[in-house]
Amino acid sequence: MLTLGRHLIAEFYGCNRETIDDLALVRTALVDAARAIGATVVGETFHKFAPQGVSGTVVIAESHLSVHTWPEKGYVAVDIYTCGGLDPRKAVPGLTQALESSSDRCQEILRGLPEDIDQQRDLLPSDVTIVTSLEEHK
Amino acid sequence: MLTLGRHLIAEFYGCNRETIDDLALVRTALVDAARAIGATVVGETFHKFAPQGVSGTVVIAESHLSVHTWPEKGYVAVDIYTCGGLDPRKAVPGLTQALESSSDRCQEILRGLPEDIDQQRDLLPSDVTIVTSLEEHK
Repeated sequence: MLTLGRHLIAEFYGCNRETIDDLALVRTALVDAARAIGATVVGETFHKFAPQGVSGTVVIAESHLSVHTWPEKGYVAVDIYTCGGLDPRKAVPGLTQALESSSDRCQEILRGLPEDIDQQRDLLPSDVTIVTSLEEHK
Repeated sequence: MLTLGRHLIAEFYGCNRETIDDLALVRTALVDAARAIGATVVGETFHKFAPQGVSGTVVIAESHLSVHTWPEKGYVAVDIYTCGGLDPRKAVPGLTQALESSSDRCQEILRGLPEDIDQQRDLLPSDVTIVTSLEEHK
């Protein structure tokens, strides 16, 4: 497999505080995100913190997804790292809906060996450039 | 807890191909990395791929660590995402040694709510700036 990886770093703001404190709902959101990008799940671990907050990771055949929630701030941090040609951005609309988020910020970083990244100049001009987008939801 | 997170994105090149294809050794390297930064491990999942490669994540009370290895390329991708004031860079020397890596590239991204990130101007001037360093080991 080409080592080229696309790593989406996403922050979700203004989320529903009860939803993102519920381990089962957060887990479903992340597993659904893996499904949305066409990934194959090979492992997972989730943890509920006291007094609040959920953390979890899903290992996929094409790398991983992670989630960390701060219910007291309505904030959720998500990573989606994909290889094998999968597009991590396909997961964002479903996560926005599942987390009931009012805005998000996404950054994308290319990972891998320099020679594999250099072959992808149509995707990003440099392997250390990040792409940032800010979305406000109606 | 302050939402401010430091997310270290590290690429290790020229690694020992046998070492990074061994699930037990890769797992030990990542758990030791968690210990090196003073994190509390709360969950983990690791997977060995056929014909080669290992993926794994360690969920910590302060966020997570992840690892993906490409033995055929001598390449390993590591993420260390920490909150609560932990310094993810403290894990790099131990990972270099454990993976028998000849060079690495590290980028650091600040995560969290804009107001929490803005309070940290002494750490980084902007929440979308990344810090990149390239280390060649003797």
